[in-house]
Amino acid sequence: MTKIELYDTTLRDGAQGEGVNFSLDDKVLIARRLDEMGFDFIEGGFPLSNPKDAEFFERLKKEPLKNSKACAFGMTRRRGVKAADDPGMKALLHSETPVVTIVGKTSDFHVAEVLRVSEQENIDMIAETIAYFVSQGREVVYDCEHFFDGWKSNPAYAAKTIQAAAQAGALRIVMCDTNGGTLPEEIARFTKEAAAAVDTPLGIHTHNDCELAVANSLAAVDAGAVHVQGTINGLGERCGNADLISIAANLALKKEGYEVLSPKKIARLSELSGYVYEIGNLLRRINQPFVGPSAFAHKGGMHVHAVNRVAHSYEHIPPETVGNERRILVSELSGRSNIIATATKLGLAEDADLMNRVLEEIVNRENRGYQYEAAEASFALLVRKLAGTFVPHFTLEKYHVTSENQGAGATTEATVKLHVHDEVEHRVAEGDGPINALDAALRKALKAHYPKLAQMSLVDYKVRVINSEAATAASVRVVIESRDESDGETWGTVGVDENVIQASWEALVDSIEYKLCKDEG
Amino acid sequence: MTKIELYDTTLRDGAQGEGVNFSLDDKVLIARRLDEMGFDFIEGGFPLSNPKDAEFFERLKKEPLKNSKACAFGMTRRRGVKAADDPGMKALLHSETPVVTIVGKTSDFHVAEVLRVSEQENIDMIAETIAYFVSQGREVVYDCEHFFDGWKSNPAYAAKTIQAAAQAGALRIVMCDTNGGTLPEEIARFTKEAAAAVDTPLGIHTHNDCELAVANSLAAVDAGAVHVQGTINGLGERCGNADLISIAANLALKKEGYEVLSPKKIARLSELSGYVYEIGNLLRRINQPFVGPSAFAHKGGMHVHAVNRVAHSYEHIPPETVGNERRILVSELSGRSNIIATATKLGLAEDADLMNRVLEEIVNRENRGYQYEAAEASFALLVRKLAGTFVPHFTLEKYHVTSENQGAGATTEATVKLHVHDEVEHRVAEGDGPINALDAALRKALKAHYPKLAQMSLVDYKVRVINSEAATAASVRVVIESRDESDGETWGTVGVDENVIQASWEALVDSIEYKLCKDEG
Repeated sequence: MTKIELYDTTLRDGAQGEGVNFSLDDKVLIARRLDEMGFDFIEGGFPLSNPKDAEFFERLKKEPLKNSKACAFGMTRRRGVKAADDPGMKALLHSETPVVTIVGKTSDFHVAEVLRVSEQENIDMIAETIAYFVSQGREVVYDCEHFFDGWKSNPAYAAKTIQAAAQAGALRIVMCDTNGGTLPEEIARFTKEAAAAVDTPLGIHTHNDCELAVANSLAAVDAGAVHVQGTINGLGERCGNADLISIAANLALKKEGYEVLSPKKIARLSELSGYVYEIGNLLRRINQPFVGPSAFAHKGGMHVHAVNRVAHSYEHIPPETVGNERRILVSELSGRSNIIATATKLGLAEDADLMNRVLEEIVNRENRGYQYEAAEASFALLVRKLAGTFVPHFTLEKYHVTSENQGAGATTEATVKLHVHDEVEHRVAEGDGPINALDAALRKALKAHYPKLAQMSLVDYKVRVINSEAATAASVRVVIESRDESDGETWGTVGVDENVIQASWEALVDSIEYKLCKDEG
Repeated sequence: MTKIELYDTTLRDGAQGEGVNFSLDDKVLIARRLDEMGFDFIEGGFPLSNPKDAEFFERLKKEPLKNSKACAFGMTRRRGVKAADDPGMKALLHSETPVVTIVGKTSDFHVAEVLRVSEQENIDMIAETIAYFVSQGREVVYDCEHFFDGWKSNPAYAAKTIQAAAQAGALRIVMCDTNGGTLPEEIARFTKEAAAAVDTPLGIHTHNDCELAVANSLAAVDAGAVHVQGTINGLGERCGNADLISIAANLALKKEGYEVLSPKKIARLSELSGYVYEIGNLLRRINQPFVGPSAFAHKGGMHVHAVNRVAHSYEHIPPETVGNERRILVSELSGRSNIIATATKLGLAEDADLMNRVLEEIVNRENRGYQYEAAEASFALLVRKLAGTFVPHFTLEKYHVTSENQGAGATTEATVKLHVHDEVEHRVAEGDGPINALDAALRKALKAHYPKLAQMSLVDYKVRVINSEAATAASVRVVIESRDESDGETWGTVGVDENVIQASWEALVDSIEYKLCKDEG
């Protein structure tokens, strides 16, 4: 078994992704979680360029990582300055991390065009910077910027740069595919050539511009690299960095002879993925390999039929090995088998007569534009209704919504009149729009009766016209996604009507009823 | 140069993706666009399992594809039935597509456990099904389900199944990595072994469960496959199918010796990607390789500096080769090239000062959630407004919309008070929903002044929440598509507001103003 080191740069390279903006506390929380997971290296940031990153390292001084080595990132010393006198070096030294990660130039072209120094000066900058930190008792990970482009255009010079790094005492030499343009076969070839040029263990750092970041990382490992840099969920600039989640899962579960995280830790990858999305307040990629909510979701009737017979037919690994779970989606493409599978989870599959009524009702509703694959909560309520086990927590007498614009922008007011526990609740609320106002009025009416509703919030709201032909007179489908802050569960509900307000009302009511049924257990 | 065929299954396998739900019209629109792009094969659906797909093929009978071959998908005949008598075969025959795609079993395990027939019967099912369609003058693409798992567990039997398909006259034999669990090195090895077993040209069909779908497709091509199946944007079940956009771009721009789409068509990949997301009302993946809005966006200061010196330092290809563009995230000038192109069409590009004001306003509006890709009419009006050449045909004093439900379903009424030609028009109308009612009242108010408005109808209406975080209180973007029955022109308009009614009003007014300006020539 070859041990493969995982080097996480979510907090530095990952933070370069569009829409990614970690607060200091976010960074500390994520670092603690990665430490707990046992990643070998955690890169915290670029102290010279970013005060927040400098502050992050101050926090680590007070409470160091337990399992992982913290890394501070910087560039080689400037031209014509002693390493000891360079402000970047001082910032890195001050970070007091056991590991310093230095990025330097490999490509003669970049040395001339971007850095604008002599080839020898670049080599001195690399060697002196690394030697300086080694003399200060730090371990140095050396990142070779544009490694593959450099090796392609001038292998002799590229080799000199990594040999200088090796002689200076670098702990690891990391080949970076900086612009993400290299193909797996080139990665493999150049990795073997680099391994022949230095004895220092090699690492790989890839980007996903060709949708090959994971394949490129695996190709480098097969060619001898023992250290992989990436980010959680593939966050990063442009198309992102290599996703360490997919890489760890592939190395641990799919490939032979490599040792990464323990099975216990691999089983927490889904949780880790979700945690980073939550902390970063980022929209998750639902079909993300291994850990996405769709990764083991089955929709096609033919497939579901087979999945129920032999799960691994359509699952390359058992979902639980990465802490994920199988989901059966209800949809027009699915045959009876999906519905049975879902009803089974609700413990109703034995009742053949009920199953037939459910099936009939689903078909009927799908023809009217309902769509249950993203609305499992509405589906569950529908089954309960048809089973006669559903008791509504409130009934509508009327709602009334008014929107007007007198030139100074639109204003909206909604009133609802409900019957709850033999009481009549008649409430009014304003809102940013009709749905928001209805939601507010509904919550006012129910608050006293069902205080736990405060735990529930709407996280997404989608509207789709079903048959475009008739335009605004056509039916609309509203899908609402809700979340229970008390346990993190999210659920979808659906409403269909010619009137977007009525369709939204339907989805709102289902969402609230689902929460209320849930709380009764 | 080896010609590599692109086989698109967005409309069948792509439609299995969670949240993907194409209407019949959506499917026809996408098929026309793929046909225009010149994909070799377009798979339209599974006529037996899905009436909507059967209806799709009826539409193609009336207006056949011009450049691509349409394919209807189905399974091998059932056990113990003559192919000619099997309902699945009849449905496929009735679809009248030049190509029929048949999926059959390659793995002895699935033959025994899922299909539950003898190994010989499975081979007969494959051979007879293919031979039957060949006898009916159809070309047959044969998809080998679980090809790689099957070849791994029992290569001798797997080989027999594809030899039977080859002898029966299959046009292509497509190796499917059905559960997405195979690694590139295995794909390459088994592809070479399959090529040794049959002379029929081979194809590859992969899924992204290990985040290797694109790498696996390229590995198969390098090993001799000449036909690649996938979907636009990698839509598909679980983690999705291989993304044909990344595959086409890699084959055309990154790898040597392969011929796919022409450079002109490759330069339309970004447009195609956006089109499929828009039609499907799907959230786009902003960091999607090659075509995502972030794919050439630069955030890191160090990078931006270098990008300005030597673009290709941090761009593996020029963005325009795939119809994308560079964005520097500090200055949000997205879409500049589109804006200039559109303004040129309006004959305003030479006015540099106007151009700058337009750019400024667009950036400003994009930050508020406006999106002009699907709203060229709103853009044209915006340019006229900034140029000072726009004279409104009516002005709003107020509108008032009421929706209520007293238990007998929702009813809606809208009033509008407008100033038109120094007259005040105050009208009321009912509608199926608030937008429909507003549209009706607006038309009543304008009919006498602008009779030609009767020629105009709304053909589509889409709503999307812009930032999901705040749910129903977030801003919504409304896009309306209108058509002029007098000349068949269609145009899109957009409105953004926290209030869906106000956003819809904005888009409605733009749509009507565009028609009125148009009639003035």
